[in-house]
Amino acid sequence: MKILILGGDGYLGWPTAMHFANKGHKVNIVDNYSRRKISKKNDSKPLFNNPNLIQRTKIFKKLFKKSIKVDLFDCQNFTKLNKLIKNFKPELIIHYAEQPSAPYSMMGFDEAKFTLNNNLNVTFNIIWSVINNCPNSHIIKLGTMGEYGTPNIDIEEGWINLFHKGRKDKFLFPRQGSSLYHTTKILDTDLLWFYVRLYKVRVTDLMQGPVYGILTNESFKDDRLLPNFHYDDIFGTVVNRFLVQAVSGHPLTVYGKGEQKRGYLNLKDTINCIELASKNPPQPGKMSILNQFTETFTVNEIASKVKKAGNKIGLNVKIKSINNPRKEKEKHYYNPKYTGLKKLGLKPNYMSEEVIITMLNFVKKYKKKINSNIIKPRVNWK
Amino acid sequence: MKILILGGDGYLGWPTAMHFANKGHKVNIVDNYSRRKISKKNDSKPLFNNPNLIQRTKIFKKLFKKSIKVDLFDCQNFTKLNKLIKNFKPELIIHYAEQPSAPYSMMGFDEAKFTLNNNLNVTFNIIWSVINNCPNSHIIKLGTMGEYGTPNIDIEEGWINLFHKGRKDKFLFPRQGSSLYHTTKILDTDLLWFYVRLYKVRVTDLMQGPVYGILTNESFKDDRLLPNFHYDDIFGTVVNRFLVQAVSGHPLTVYGKGEQKRGYLNLKDTINCIELASKNPPQPGKMSILNQFTETFTVNEIASKVKKAGNKIGLNVKIKSINNPRKEKEKHYYNPKYTGLKKLGLKPNYMSEEVIITMLNFVKKYKKKINSNIIKPRVNWK
Repeated sequence: MKILILGGDGYLGWPTAMHFANKGHKVNIVDNYSRRKISKKNDSKPLFNNPNLIQRTKIFKKLFKKSIKVDLFDCQNFTKLNKLIKNFKPELIIHYAEQPSAPYSMMGFDEAKFTLNNNLNVTFNIIWSVINNCPNSHIIKLGTMGEYGTPNIDIEEGWINLFHKGRKDKFLFPRQGSSLYHTTKILDTDLLWFYVRLYKVRVTDLMQGPVYGILTNESFKDDRLLPNFHYDDIFGTVVNRFLVQAVSGHPLTVYGKGEQKRGYLNLKDTINCIELASKNPPQPGKMSILNQFTETFTVNEIASKVKKAGNKIGLNVKIKSINNPRKEKEKHYYNPKYTGLKKLGLKPNYMSEEVIITMLNFVKKYKKKINSNIIKPRVNWK
Repeated sequence: MKILILGGDGYLGWPTAMHFANKGHKVNIVDNYSRRKISKKNDSKPLFNNPNLIQRTKIFKKLFKKSIKVDLFDCQNFTKLNKLIKNFKPELIIHYAEQPSAPYSMMGFDEAKFTLNNNLNVTFNIIWSVINNCPNSHIIKLGTMGEYGTPNIDIEEGWINLFHKGRKDKFLFPRQGSSLYHTTKILDTDLLWFYVRLYKVRVTDLMQGPVYGILTNESFKDDRLLPNFHYDDIFGTVVNRFLVQAVSGHPLTVYGKGEQKRGYLNLKDTINCIELASKNPPQPGKMSILNQFTETFTVNEIASKVKKAGNKIGLNVKIKSINNPRKEKEKHYYNPKYTGLKKLGLKPNYMSEEVIITMLNFVKKYKKKINSNIIKPRVNWK
């Protein structure tokens, strides 16, 4: 299959690219290093340096004898994106090319404006390039569970049947995000759903929870093939942050009450979910929405898990509640459905103690590189 | 009150500006003549020429002894908008500064991209200028009934209480538009609601139906004070199009089955609704959503009304169904609630035969100016 991966330098994009290339697919990735630039500017360095895409693809080729084509441009540039899609005619487009940080989107006007315009225009450009050149292509878009927010009713899988005053209809499940980043993902969903209805585009929208983990089937061979691993408040997801705090001897920073519950998944399962979605494209004019995570935890539960696992390998892990820099409910109902991907065959990699210990041991290798100045939250929602 | 009207050159913006200035408010309008440029480029001329804002405000001042300050710039320019809001510190901002044509948004990539970026970025800039400079200001945003689409359940006023599997919560009423323009209005709503929740901005979102009519309390004094009156498919709303077709002897062009039902209102009532909304601002952190129309009709019903009224004044009005250039349901359930504005005191100007005859007689004055080449739809959704 010809696969175009937009945002191929990212935490998810790069492992996805290696996975599909290693399986023999023809993979072309695009990136503009936007995340690298933002992270440099905001002192948000990853735990270890990642070679650039030209270097990475060379290392990958040497080890796996497979090529990954790289294009370095901004997908906000329609002319360039359209030209590539016109020539490559991908059967599958995996769209990771968004500003992915909620805290970054809340830093101020410039960051919010960039997030809004980048995320909306890239999605818009993809839709139009597909309509123009390969209307039968399957677009897999990474959404987020955060689009649903934390409603007081069960979260269904993308859609909801409403019974109202004796009549009924089916709608997108109501969405209400807690950051501008999350809100742009809601706008993406609205935009995609409009063009799916109108021009019969084929879209899968994956509502993903926070991802954790490092190693996937390809990167274990050479650390230079690892994805970026952030542990600061801008690009680090909560589990990865806790792992680094545990290793560095910093107390795990629980925001507020710590009863915020979310659905989590291992990086390996992101890859597995994308693969399952790629094998099950929706019919033209249908939008398939899948809730993408494997288990739910409160922040307190994750902190306890990391503490327990850390103490087993001789780390002295402490937990400390700090003022919540975000505006979010710290105690809430949360019961999201997540059966779609399991029905497609997903065998989850759960967050076992063994898995946490493996990750902690991995982070220990890079203990000296940890910058303790970026271990506490710097961006405040208020 | 200090009132800033964005999009003050428009069909609604200009009469709104005159109304508030005439009542003694301090009115500052902004426009970049975007609609004039689009209409020139697309051979979508209004029925008569409208003097530009500098000329209009001079005529208005002469007749009413009241000033309206004019600034000509693009509200996508944050620096300019922010500077104006910083200096003027409006208590009320009426936001009409959007690309308002559904057919235009469906012409192609460039038009869709412009609509998306203009509408979202202007809304975004207003929010941030208000947060920066006058967080207590009331923003009145023109939304559209088209955001709701034509669901198979009763349309509530902005919000809906959901009872689901034994639990309940309140959400934005589900929205699903039938053009990119309508979709941008949905995105606007999402964006506004996010910032209202987060930064306690005060927003009224008016979900307006198609507006018809010409004269308001100020323009009747001098035709040079009339708003733009379009009758082509890009900027002309359905009633205004029918009026011109009736006068020119062209059959009224009903799209498809003509059972499309919508909520309509007279231009005079747009002004009345804005005035009522301005006197009833929401509390900080609340978004007031009102469905803004006064009665519902199918397209067939409107065509019959115009035909009957036209024949009474000696026009030989015919009705002709043509292929629907839009993608929309031609027969559907439609039961929208519209009690909020009535509760605030709205006394509707209904579409009586007398009102239609007055409008037809007005159009007759300009009969020679009608361009029959733009009387049939030119933009196709497909």
